[in-house]
Amino acid sequence: MINYEAFFRVSYGLYIVSAGDKTVRNGFISNSVFQVTAEPPQFAVCCNKENYSAGIIRNSGFFSISVLDREADPRLIGKFGYKSGKDISKFENVQYKTGESGVPIVLEDTVAWIECELKEIFDVGTHLIFTGEVLHSEVLDVGAEVLTYSYYKDHRKGLAPKNAPTYVAYSKLKN
Amino acid sequence: MINYEAFFRVSYGLYIVSAGDKTVRNGFISNSVFQVTAEPPQFAVCCNKENYSAGIIRNSGFFSISVLDREADPRLIGKFGYKSGKDISKFENVQYKTGESGVPIVLEDTVAWIECELKEIFDVGTHLIFTGEVLHSEVLDVGAEVLTYSYYKDHRKGLAPKNAPTYVAYSKLKN
Repeated sequence: MINYEAFFRVSYGLYIVSAGDKTVRNGFISNSVFQVTAEPPQFAVCCNKENYSAGIIRNSGFFSISVLDREADPRLIGKFGYKSGKDISKFENVQYKTGESGVPIVLEDTVAWIECELKEIFDVGTHLIFTGEVLHSEVLDVGAEVLTYSYYKDHRKGLAPKNAPTYVAYSKLKN
Repeated sequence: MINYEAFFRVSYGLYIVSAGDKTVRNGFISNSVFQVTAEPPQFAVCCNKENYSAGIIRNSGFFSISVLDREADPRLIGKFGYKSGKDISKFENVQYKTGESGVPIVLEDTVAWIECELKEIFDVGTHLIFTGEVLHSEVLDVGAEVLTYSYYKDHRKGLAPKNAPTYVAYSKLKN
C-alpha cells in the first residue's frame, strides 16, 4: 500500500528556476532542486515535459536557481508557479538580472542564487531531470530564512501545482 | 565566482537509503532524495559510485528510503553515514524490517519509509542518480518532526561526509 502522506515527510526548499536569453525567457517554481556532485559542483532540477521552461532550458543550455525567502511575496510565487510563460511574460515587473551566461536570474525575494550550465537531460517519464554545472553563485541575504516546502504547505497553506513532481491529488490523502 | 555558502541555502532532509536482500544488505545516509514524478510516483536518490551501496542497489533492483526523526540517534547516523558496509554489518543491532520486495527498511528513529523498485540509473560523474517507482510507503510517527540537513548542520553541528554530493571542503567556506 502507498501512503501518500509519507511523501510529505521528504524535505524540499522552494525555488524559481529560470532559463532563456534576451529574446525568450521563462521561469517556474520548483521544489525539486538538489546537488548531485561536489566535484565539480552540479545541481539537478526536475521539470515537467509540458512546462514551457523545459524547451527553453534545452535550447539555451543554461539555467539559474533562485532560493526563495521564507516570506516571499505570494504574487511572485503565483506568477511563476501557477501561470504559464506561454500566456504571460513572467519577468515583467520582477526584479532580476542577466547572468554572465545570459540566463535570467530572479533577485526578488531571493536569499541566494546559482547559475548553471546544462550538462545532461534525463528522461524519467512525465518529467525531465536537468543537471548543470555551477558557473557562479551568490548569497544575497546572509541572515534570511529560506522558504521550505513544508513551511509553505503548513504555514502558508500552499500546495504543489499539478505539473510538479510532488503533486498529490487531494483524493489520495487520508486527511 | 562560486560562493559555496549559497549551496547551503538549498534545503534537504536526512534519510537512510537501504538496499539488498537476505544475504547482502547495506544502507547509507543521504540528503539527496526527491520525488521526480507524481504519476507513477517515483523518487530519485543520489549515491557516490564508490559507495558499497551503489552496487547493491544495482544488483538487487530495489531500494528503501527511511525518513529520519529530528532527534535520530547520532550513533545511527554515525553508523550509516560515516562507516562503510565493506567493514561493518550496518544492520546489526538496528531495528529494521524486510519489505515485500526483500529490501531492508530501517525503522529505528524513522518517521516514514518508502520502498522503491529501481527503474533507471543515470551517471552524473562521481555519483549515480537512481530512480525508483514507489511500491509501498508508510508513516510510522504522524506527529514527529523530520530531520532536515539544515537542522543537522546548525543545531546538531553535523556536516556531510566526503562521499556526499553536497560535501563542501571547509577550505571553500568563507566563515
